[in-house]
Amino acid sequence: MREFPGTPGTLTSLFLRITQCVFAAGSIAAMATAPNFTGITAFCYLIASMGLQVAWSFALAVLDGIALVKKKVLHNPLLVSLFIVGDWVTALLSLAAASSSAGVAVLYFNDLGNCGFGEECQKYQLSVALAFLGWVSVSISSLIMLWLFAAG
Amino acid sequence: MREFPGTPGTLTSLFLRITQCVFAAGSIAAMATAPNFTGITAFCYLIASMGLQVAWSFALAVLDGIALVKKKVLHNPLLVSLFIVGDWVTALLSLAAASSSAGVAVLYFNDLGNCGFGEECQKYQLSVALAFLGWVSVSISSLIMLWLFAAG
Repeated sequence: MREFPGTPGTLTSLFLRITQCVFAAGSIAAMATAPNFTGITAFCYLIASMGLQVAWSFALAVLDGIALVKKKVLHNPLLVSLFIVGDWVTALLSLAAASSSAGVAVLYFNDLGNCGFGEECQKYQLSVALAFLGWVSVSISSLIMLWLFAAG
Repeated sequence: MREFPGTPGTLTSLFLRITQCVFAAGSIAAMATAPNFTGITAFCYLIASMGLQVAWSFALAVLDGIALVKKKVLHNPLLVSLFIVGDWVTALLSLAAASSSAGVAVLYFNDLGNCGFGEECQKYQLSVALAFLGWVSVSISSLIMLWLFAAG
């Protein structure tokens, strides 16, 4: 399999994985510090989905780090298929979670005039924004993986 | 390019396009007949996104129909790349629209105890369910297109 920026075991890949982890962790932190989020299903789903993204991206970041240090190439077709499935599942769940939370956040901010929860509202917005950034980052990884697999 | 069930110009492809069209049109019909939907941004976005899906799937259904009748093969690489981009954009927008509407629908049904809009609520649920079915259908088409392109 060819090696190009973003494939497993490169610096770009490590950077992408760390970005995903940071955005997802930031989204969880912003949401979890807003006391009333547990009453809204979409926000709980966002936390669960971002938790999965943190776990997945962290595991792959560690793998990339090990491959970089030991100068190993992670281009085993079986491993790449596993990465593709994991990345696509994570990306789809992240998009769905970010969108459903965005729907609720926009409902409170625009449709019902203003958000009645006080300063928590900014945390909701921040959490949704970070979740979308995390989705962009994980979808870049998914496309690179798919490309690597298709290019053989 | 190889021909297998679901590639442009086959009966399976025509069937998939018609399914997409029907689900998206059903979702629009269910939402548009519920009077108060205009006050909720997520529901307006759902209508816009499903409108795009109807237009796109209808155009491709017509193209498939013509190809079937005239026995032409639509496996031009340029045409297939166009189909891939269109399908993926439609699929992403549909998933985002269905998820954001689902977030709002679940908020009204579960989180706030019950839905205060009366019988419209069932229409909201129906519309969201049809939007998800439409997304499943359009994502099957996207995967087939990608496979066709990758298989050369």
